This record gives sequence, structure tokens and C-alpha cells, in this order.
Amino acid sequence: MTIPVLQVTGFKESGKTTLLKRWTALGKANGWKVGVLKHHGHQNEPLQPEGVDSLELKEAGAVVSGVEGAGVFQFLADMEEPDLSTLLNIYQQLPLDVILIEGYKKAPYPKVLLLRSTDDKASLEDLDNIQTAFGPGEEVNHFQDTDNADAWFEQYMRSIL
Amino acid sequence: MTIPVLQVTGFKESGKTTLLKRWTALGKANGWKVGVLKHHGHQNEPLQPEGVDSLELKEAGAVVSGVEGAGVFQFLADMEEPDLSTLLNIYQQLPLDVILIEGYKKAPYPKVLLLRSTDDKASLEDLDNIQTAFGPGEEVNHFQDTDNADAWFEQYMRSIL
Repeated sequence: MTIPVLQVTGFKESGKTTLLKRWTALGKANGWKVGVLKHHGHQNEPLQPEGVDSLELKEAGAVVSGVEGAGVFQFLADMEEPDLSTLLNIYQQLPLDVILIEGYKKAPYPKVLLLRSTDDKASLEDLDNIQTAFGPGEEVNHFQDTDNADAWFEQYMRSIL
Repeated sequence: MTIPVLQVTGFKESGKTTLLKRWTALGKANGWKVGVLKHHGHQNEPLQPEGVDSLELKEAGAVVSGVEGAGVFQFLADMEEPDLSTLLNIYQQLPLDVILIEGYKKAPYPKVLLLRSTDDKASLEDLDNIQTAFGPGEEVNHFQDTDNADAWFEQYMRSIL
């Protein structure tokens, strides 16, 4: 079975992480197992834990270092410009109901647009597989209306589960 | 193609992490892409980074949270007693030459035993798929002889690559 994917896309400061957190919590409240994948941008390396074995082994030269224990699996990998499909292949190994993705807006998966302005809409409307958009302007829902966004997500999830 | 797996097993304080680091560095020096997986034990949860998006999303209720950027992929997952095979399925998605595993001594993959004493040897010798053993006692190499351990690893790797 392929785990369904839903992207949350939009420019900086459009509220992507806020919505992702909201929908993650809402998914959990519904009993759905949510996996999240976020594109962090090229400037900022994700913070690493210090002094743990996984990092020690990485510093010894491992390309990939993982530690499993006490119900947690922690994993660090060097991946220059990985394909999103490679990352999704990792998530597909896990018992998830949905994979929510922040960013990677050129990817082909079903996606929600977050718009800051009607200009954003003009720049983004040729992306593939847009399911809905939230934000200011005509013909789009208002992201400020979080109840509406939540209702959309729940309905969408029920349609794919 | 299936990426080959080599386990380093033995009781506590037998030098597993030391050997794993040594072979990881040696693998890198040979140009091999080494992935490492370590069983951390049940008492100690691996340390988590603080204040990063991946952890925020995990706290919002995500079962799995990953962040990719700047050539690094960082991944946190809640997994109660995961099967080793599930974790290895993740590693199999990645461009690695070998996966070195610390622990999981009942798993069936080719394995190296580290022995602290001849008693250890008696307790461990019925494990599956033992390739060699390092440590004190008759009929086993001395792990203190790191050159010998390194030579074994390089020869083994060349036999499987």
C-alpha cells in the first residue's frame, strides 16, 4: 500500500509550519498516524544533537547514522540535494496514514497553497496537483479561518483513507 | 541491489562502539559509503536536538518528523520495539556500500563477535552467521590487535563488494 502524501506549499512567511503543526495535531486527535517532512532551505543546516553516539559515528565518517532505543529511532544522513522520492521511499517503510510535506513546491503530489497576496496566487497557480488554496484574495479561502482549513483537511483525509 | 549488512555484537563493554568507529573511518578511507545502525538499549532514549522544527512537529503529534536541508537529512521517529528489518528497509533506500550494525545479536546477518572472556565465547557461539571473533582466549583473534581487526574488515569488504 502506498501511503498518501499531501504537500503544504507557499512562499516564506505564508504560515506553512503553523498549518503543518495544526494539521499534525488534528490528525493525531483523529487517530491518524502522521509523518511530516520539511524542507529546511539551503542556508540552515538542521541542528544536530551533541555528544550522542549517532553523531560520533557520523563524525567517524558514516554517511548515515541511526540509533534505536526506548521507542525512538533517530537518524542522521548526509544527503546532498536528495530527491524527494528518495526521502519518501524512507517514509513509505513506516506504518503511517499520511505524509505531510512542507515545501518542495515543484513536486507532483497533491498540494495545498498558502497565499500571502493575490500576487502569490499568480506565481503559484501553475503548480501541479493543487487541491485548494488558503489566503487572501478572491476565489481562495481565508487561511485566517483556521476552522475552515481544519474542516478541509479532515474531509480530504477521509476521502483518501 | 541489496546493500550488505555486517553486525558487530558482544556484551557490554566489549568494545563494539570503538570497533564500529574504527571500521567506519577505515571504510571512508577506502572510499566506501558506510551506514551505521546502533541499538541504544531500552533505558536510554537517544538525546534529541532542541528547538528545531523536526522536534516541534513531533511534539505536535507526528509519529515521524524529518527535516532536509544543507546536505543533511535529520529524522526522528516514534517506534516501539521496531523490527530490525523495518529499520534496514530504511537504510536500503540510501546509496550505501555497507550497513554496519551494533547490537541486535539475535538477528541473522553476518556478524563479528567481540569477546571479553572465554565465558563470553561460550554464551555467544550459538549465534547465527558468525564470521569471526575478536577477543581473548584460544581460537579467537585478539581485538587488542587492531591491525588484525582492520585487515579482516578490509578483506571481508572486498569479498562482498
